Amino acid sequence: MTHDWLDRVRWNLDGLVPAVAQEAATLRVLTLAWMNREALAKTAKTNEAHYWSRSRAKLWRKGERSGHVQRVREIRMDCDSDAILLLVDQVGGIACHTGRERCFYKRLDEGAWHAVEPVLKDPDTIYGG
Amino acid sequence: MTHDWLDRVRWNLDGLVPAVAQEAATLRVLTLAWMNREALAKTAKTNEAHYWSRSRAKLWRKGERSGHVQRVREIRMDCDSDAILLLVDQVGGIACHTGRERCFYKRLDEGAWHAVEPVLKDPDTIYGG
Repeated sequence: MTHDWLDRVRWNLDGLVPAVAQEAATLRVLTLAWMNREALAKTAKTNEAHYWSRSRAKLWRKGERSGHVQRVREIRMDCDSDAILLLVDQVGGIACHTGRERCFYKRLDEGAWHAVEPVLKDPDTIYGG
Repeated sequence: MTHDWLDRVRWNLDGLVPAVAQEAATLRVLTLAWMNREALAKTAKTNEAHYWSRSRAKLWRKGERSGHVQRVREIRMDCDSDAILLLVDQVGGIACHTGRERCFYKRLDEGAWHAVEPVLKDPDTIYGG
């Protein structure tokens, strides 16, 4: 099997690209994470979002601990071939490790960041803290 | 005036963060570009998207040549403070330098990338080729 399509991606010097996940039903932007070649290949093969965790330096199947899997409906790439966009169904309705629907919950208002979205589930409950 | 909010951003080693722009009316994801501190400060001050061009190594007001300005309605940051999300009105309805509505026009289908969105305006016309 050929992997030409993986060669088309312009990986950065660390072998990564940023990948945005957008909820298919609401079109809300959930997360921005990073993928290496293996993560993108597994995402395409399994239709579940896989990322590269830069902090843990390991491949990571989104939701592997929380159950909050991202089922992938569509994979897109941008004009410069250095960014990925996933259209996903976010299982459990929670994409963020803080227990919020999505990671982009801080809004700039009058020169300060404000958390403007509720915690839907206690992270200790999610991760069995 | 204090710039605490700019200090809260976790800039990468190059002093940049990825910034996603999403069309406010349709919620379609238009672009992923990069911002340095000055780009984000100017974006917040002027309500027009500014980015850092990595290829040209200069600050760049989106639409400065094409007129396809992004008017910013909202600035968001993610949980890790290392990604930005802009909600914008895309002037002219074209965000991509290829003349398409948005940069994410390549879709992965059966192991290959396919351009699945039309060119709305010839780039030569846009940029006065």
